[in-house]
Amino acid sequence: MTFVTNNSSPWTPPESTHPQTGLSVFNSLTKSTVPFVPREGNTVSWYACGPTVYDASHLGHARTYVTFDIVRRIMEDYFNYDVNLVMNVTDIDDKIILRARHKHLVSEYKLQKAGLDTQTVQEVEDAFRAFVSAKLGQTITSDADWALYATKTDNGKDAQMAKDNEKFPMLFTAARSAFEAIRAARQSLAEGIATKEAADELVMASEDVVALWLDAQFATTVKDHRIFRDLAARWEKAFFEDMDLLQVRRPNIITRVSEFVPEIVTFIQRIIDNGYAYECDGSVYFDVSAFDGKHGHFYAKLKPTAKGNQALLAEGEGALSKDTVNRRNKSDFALWKVSKAGEPEWPSPWGNGRPGWHIECSVMASEILGENIDIHTGGIDLNFPHHDNEIAQSEACFDNHQWVNYFMHTGHLLIEGLKMSKSLKNFISIKDALGRYSVRQLRLLFVLARWNDPLDLDFKLQSMPEILKTETSFDNFFANVSALLHDFRAHQYESDGKRRFLAPELELLDALNETKTQVHAALMDSFDTYTAIHALRSIVSRTNVYLQRGRASIDPQILEMVALYVTKIVRAFGLCNDSAPMAIGWGPSPSSAIGADSESPADRETVLRPVASVLSDFRDAVRELALSGGDKRALLSLCDKVRDVDLVNLGIILDDHGDGSALIKFGDPEKLRSERAARQAEEDARMAQKEAAARAAEAKRQARLEQGKMSPGDMFRTAEMCAMYAAWDENGLPTKDKAGEDLPKSSIKKLVKLQSAQAKLHEEYLKSL
Amino acid sequence: MTFVTNNSSPWTPPESTHPQTGLSVFNSLTKSTVPFVPREGNTVSWYACGPTVYDASHLGHARTYVTFDIVRRIMEDYFNYDVNLVMNVTDIDDKIILRARHKHLVSEYKLQKAGLDTQTVQEVEDAFRAFVSAKLGQTITSDADWALYATKTDNGKDAQMAKDNEKFPMLFTAARSAFEAIRAARQSLAEGIATKEAADELVMASEDVVALWLDAQFATTVKDHRIFRDLAARWEKAFFEDMDLLQVRRPNIITRVSEFVPEIVTFIQRIIDNGYAYECDGSVYFDVSAFDGKHGHFYAKLKPTAKGNQALLAEGEGALSKDTVNRRNKSDFALWKVSKAGEPEWPSPWGNGRPGWHIECSVMASEILGENIDIHTGGIDLNFPHHDNEIAQSEACFDNHQWVNYFMHTGHLLIEGLKMSKSLKNFISIKDALGRYSVRQLRLLFVLARWNDPLDLDFKLQSMPEILKTETSFDNFFANVSALLHDFRAHQYESDGKRRFLAPELELLDALNETKTQVHAALMDSFDTYTAIHALRSIVSRTNVYLQRGRASIDPQILEMVALYVTKIVRAFGLCNDSAPMAIGWGPSPSSAIGADSESPADRETVLRPVASVLSDFRDAVRELALSGGDKRALLSLCDKVRDVDLVNLGIILDDHGDGSALIKFGDPEKLRSERAARQAEEDARMAQKEAAARAAEAKRQARLEQGKMSPGDMFRTAEMCAMYAAWDENGLPTKDKAGEDLPKSSIKKLVKLQSAQAKLHEEYLKSL
Repeated sequence: MTFVTNNSSPWTPPESTHPQTGLSVFNSLTKSTVPFVPREGNTVSWYACGPTVYDASHLGHARTYVTFDIVRRIMEDYFNYDVNLVMNVTDIDDKIILRARHKHLVSEYKLQKAGLDTQTVQEVEDAFRAFVSAKLGQTITSDADWALYATKTDNGKDAQMAKDNEKFPMLFTAARSAFEAIRAARQSLAEGIATKEAADELVMASEDVVALWLDAQFATTVKDHRIFRDLAARWEKAFFEDMDLLQVRRPNIITRVSEFVPEIVTFIQRIIDNGYAYECDGSVYFDVSAFDGKHGHFYAKLKPTAKGNQALLAEGEGALSKDTVNRRNKSDFALWKVSKAGEPEWPSPWGNGRPGWHIECSVMASEILGENIDIHTGGIDLNFPHHDNEIAQSEACFDNHQWVNYFMHTGHLLIEGLKMSKSLKNFISIKDALGRYSVRQLRLLFVLARWNDPLDLDFKLQSMPEILKTETSFDNFFANVSALLHDFRAHQYESDGKRRFLAPELELLDALNETKTQVHAALMDSFDTYTAIHALRSIVSRTNVYLQRGRASIDPQILEMVALYVTKIVRAFGLCNDSAPMAIGWGPSPSSAIGADSESPADRETVLRPVASVLSDFRDAVRELALSGGDKRALLSLCDKVRDVDLVNLGIILDDHGDGSALIKFGDPEKLRSERAARQAEEDARMAQKEAAARAAEAKRQARLEQGKMSPGDMFRTAEMCAMYAAWDENGLPTKDKAGEDLPKSSIKKLVKLQSAQAKLHEEYLKSL
Repeated sequence: MTFVTNNSSPWTPPESTHPQTGLSVFNSLTKSTVPFVPREGNTVSWYACGPTVYDASHLGHARTYVTFDIVRRIMEDYFNYDVNLVMNVTDIDDKIILRARHKHLVSEYKLQKAGLDTQTVQEVEDAFRAFVSAKLGQTITSDADWALYATKTDNGKDAQMAKDNEKFPMLFTAARSAFEAIRAARQSLAEGIATKEAADELVMASEDVVALWLDAQFATTVKDHRIFRDLAARWEKAFFEDMDLLQVRRPNIITRVSEFVPEIVTFIQRIIDNGYAYECDGSVYFDVSAFDGKHGHFYAKLKPTAKGNQALLAEGEGALSKDTVNRRNKSDFALWKVSKAGEPEWPSPWGNGRPGWHIECSVMASEILGENIDIHTGGIDLNFPHHDNEIAQSEACFDNHQWVNYFMHTGHLLIEGLKMSKSLKNFISIKDALGRYSVRQLRLLFVLARWNDPLDLDFKLQSMPEILKTETSFDNFFANVSALLHDFRAHQYESDGKRRFLAPELELLDALNETKTQVHAALMDSFDTYTAIHALRSIVSRTNVYLQRGRASIDPQILEMVALYVTKIVRAFGLCNDSAPMAIGWGPSPSSAIGADSESPADRETVLRPVASVLSDFRDAVRELALSGGDKRALLSLCDKVRDVDLVNLGIILDDHGDGSALIKFGDPEKLRSERAARQAEEDARMAQKEAAARAAEAKRQARLEQGKMSPGDMFRTAEMCAMYAAWDENGLPTKDKAGEDLPKSSIKKLVKLQSAQAKLHEEYLKSL
């Protein structure tokens, strides 16, 4: 089956025996939404036109890359395709070459200058005159000439001039900056200031004019590839840093033109061999007329109306290729450019040169993904000539008729109705935007537009308030549900046999199922995130109404189902915080550093909640005490409990210091608990020992008292004693033994000692009564 | 289209206009693998037979619930179905009733006993004899009788007896334990020991025999539902704790039988009304012969060969229903059982009673998921009669022919070739298993078997070493790739234009794509995780070979692609650590206190310290107040400060509720701070207005006081007044005007009024002094 598109370029729907998801996508090749059928099973090969790296990324880049990141996440996380995304980095390009060479020449020039002198001032003045002549078409012979020109152009603000030449304001500003720097330098010299700093100041303030002047003289001396590569590497790094900030998933494979030059040469040779390209003066051109309409080929599939549009074609050929060349046809475009002096060059069968812009993408995409690719993406401004030429080149090389099955272009980004540009002062870098809005807010901006629609940003009036409102409604919803679920979980087994999934819950479940159907239909309809988000907002509102029933009469399960589903979808749009964007492996170990028994080491809420609970409970108790006129002892015992029980269980130690403030320490909860238990056991043992000793002492005391009951006068008159002695003195001390014999002195001495000991005991006894 | 299955029960494949994933599942209703087509779009309604909660869960439970968790994760995370999983908890059941009643009676009996006495010993001896007689068929009249019996049965180890009666070893052990406890108690009494402890020891050691003896006498006294519910709640909690440990995702909705009794009654009434059930002596029975083969109905769809199998049917009817009942047909089974004394009961049109086992699932599933369900799951041992009866009941109630479209049963779990049972001593609780193997290892065990295959565990010899080897190979792979990627990321922008995606990388990419195709095919083929894991192991080996090229000549991008894909699949099998099993919301905020840019989980201390500090400071302040005899207002204002200032700064919201406990919520600190600032500004404005009003009122008051300084008697005697009047009365009221004329009555009236007004002001003035 072959679809014939509006403009007669044919498109054949891919076929597959593999089951399909039902996803349809808007295809620039048919200008319509068509079923998406990947070539091989579930795997999607995707080539994305990446950045040309010579400057900071702006909101226009964000629109393209974030939007396709959303599309990719939906494919990967929602539709479960295995996406192989290849993205190029254009590191060989006219703009890179010029900027790198200029930077390099200016920097060398600065190095030469030991201090400010008249020669330098004169050189910069020469540069200034040359610049004004070349770029502004004015001959300046004196300061007065410039003053006159400045007045005439309303100091560079003349609207008509800006309209005639988009770059006029920038060029004027560069010239004026140089003019003022020269005047300042002259003044410095007059005042005898000749420092290195003064020289550097002059050169830097005149950088643009000096660069052009130096380039005209020394361009041919710049040969080292590293000069060009270093500039590209610097901006490539900045680009990916911006993308990381925006939570754009990294491509699976990044290709750099500078790494694929031999493959590009081979590819071009194949096109020549197939008869669709020719060499001319060391350059190679694509032969449009040999290709278009021949052997079933079709040129400019994406924008047939632009075929032969010289302005667009010239822009595509690059700044360094404006000079006339001997191509056969004005529509022919360069595959290989002979390098001029001051440009990087690589060997080829046609002499040293460098790849054209369009060819790089054809080669890198095909090299990794093969001769037929599922998806190719890029911004809408790239459709002609860049993408049309890419298609032509590849179909010429492989002599096939559908190099790419689905071409997807993001819509234009306008700022308050106008194209973003530096001269219009509506140029917003990604870093600027992130200074004003969060990543989530910026992504929501793109989620709330269909990916291929133009997007007109009115930061002040329309777009952002709507976005902030949407975010807040999700914020509140998530916070409420999380809190309620947590609260419920603490009590979930206290079921009294009464909680039930009743009519309101069944209704909400039906509404949720309907939402799922709506969201699924929206996403199948060419990733219609706008409709999907509105379906989510509506189930959130519906759930908020349900929540008004109050804590006691809601069922947490249905709440959790809604909240998990909403989370799943907003996560698939990349609106959630990517905690581990490169998650490889088993994931964070549950036994890792954070809270041995906490489920999620990285999850702020999970980690903080236990301590927050201790704090909250403590506060509740303090409030209750305060309200009921609390007393000092109760307050202090609360404080002790928080320290000794609640916090110890969480692995937090409070060391009370004399100054009334506690020192906070952290430990292993398990260890702290067992230490506490050990301390307790020790304390118990000590107490037990103390009690035993006390008991023993008491027993001893009792025994002494018992012993002391007997008066010393009676102690030798007991029955037992009477069996031993026969006579006693007035103090009850025995004097004769049973046999009537006087007791020997030594015996009496002993008995006296015994009696006096007993006298002491008896005294104690009498006292104890 | 209608499939006729082996055993002639008809099955109609579901139809849908929704695109299908290509997934096929083994369906117990057809005994074959059939295409899976959910009824409504992408949503899968799933009812899982849950636990009967009266004891700890064992490895057999783990096999069923982990296996279906793997299936569910693949459906949710890999095929992107929206699963609504409803699981019941059976909290009304013969085993629960018996066990709860026994525990309750024994516990009451223990409470009655103040100490050990001969009566208690005699009672336990009576219980012992009754038990041995009833359970072991022996008459014991003396210790010698028991000794003889013990010898005869090889102390309970007699193999033949164990074979004849599976429970013999357990019963013998219970009797022996009681016997020994009685002997010990007699000895204690002889030694004069009569403590409470000795009595408790006797009762606890004889618990099983005492329970039966008490139950025979006092079962009818146990009426409170809470006794049954508390036991069920305790084991339900234990079950979900085990499931959480095993990383089994919680069901979306948990239903408890005790919460659905009225719905069960209504459901049964519908079956009676449809002519498929009848009441008999207060119970209701399903009329199998009225149903089977009539109006297109078919009984025992899952296991037609078991139709009429009395042993299986009796087991399904439960332990308390063994007595003969007046059912019409032996195959008929109870829908509603008249409650005997000592059983919980609920009202019904047929008198007080309780639901049968099978009916609960029919009702709860249909109540939440409707009259037609996509998937019903359970262990294979439940297929007949439980699931067949469930199907018959539901199809009888709704008078439809396919209540469930896909019935899925996990395979049997054997331990070293034998069914797991307590008596065989191969009974492994989940906690035991987790003491020996990690969650991942246990899950791998199930992943490496097909979900519906029998699984024979040989812990020592076969299964586990294979699993450990598999785990280690993934471990090493993840560790290697992570290390290499980390290393590469540090140097990634130092590209020298030489790194290239070359032939070895393209080959590995091809192999990866082939692996994806294999895994996808395996998972579509009824979740064949076994084949999928082997495909993963093979790409890991393939990648290990690639890694041998050495760091300098590998491309990290292809490595990352392989590792991310392997991670994605093992994560879909639940083998990764669930970092946030209930992740709702935006996820951990990258800008929050927790590890802002660190890839590794933030350390516990950094995360917890801010909240710990708030808590500690609060506690310090409370202590200081307590020590200085704090007052109520100071305490409450401290509480407010913690909530409104300290915690808001940390993104923690405390919502004070009327019940004195605050609900804890989490939010974005930045946002909360700005909201607080806005509230503060509003409050400030309100206060400023109030102050201005107060100032105005004060000024007015001052003016009145100023005015009131003048005494009313002097007010008409001022210089000004003396110019107007000539004579005054004793109260200072003018009587004549300047001309000496008497003042007219009307004038005097006015002056009197003025004077009395001044009198009031003057009084106020005097008071203010």
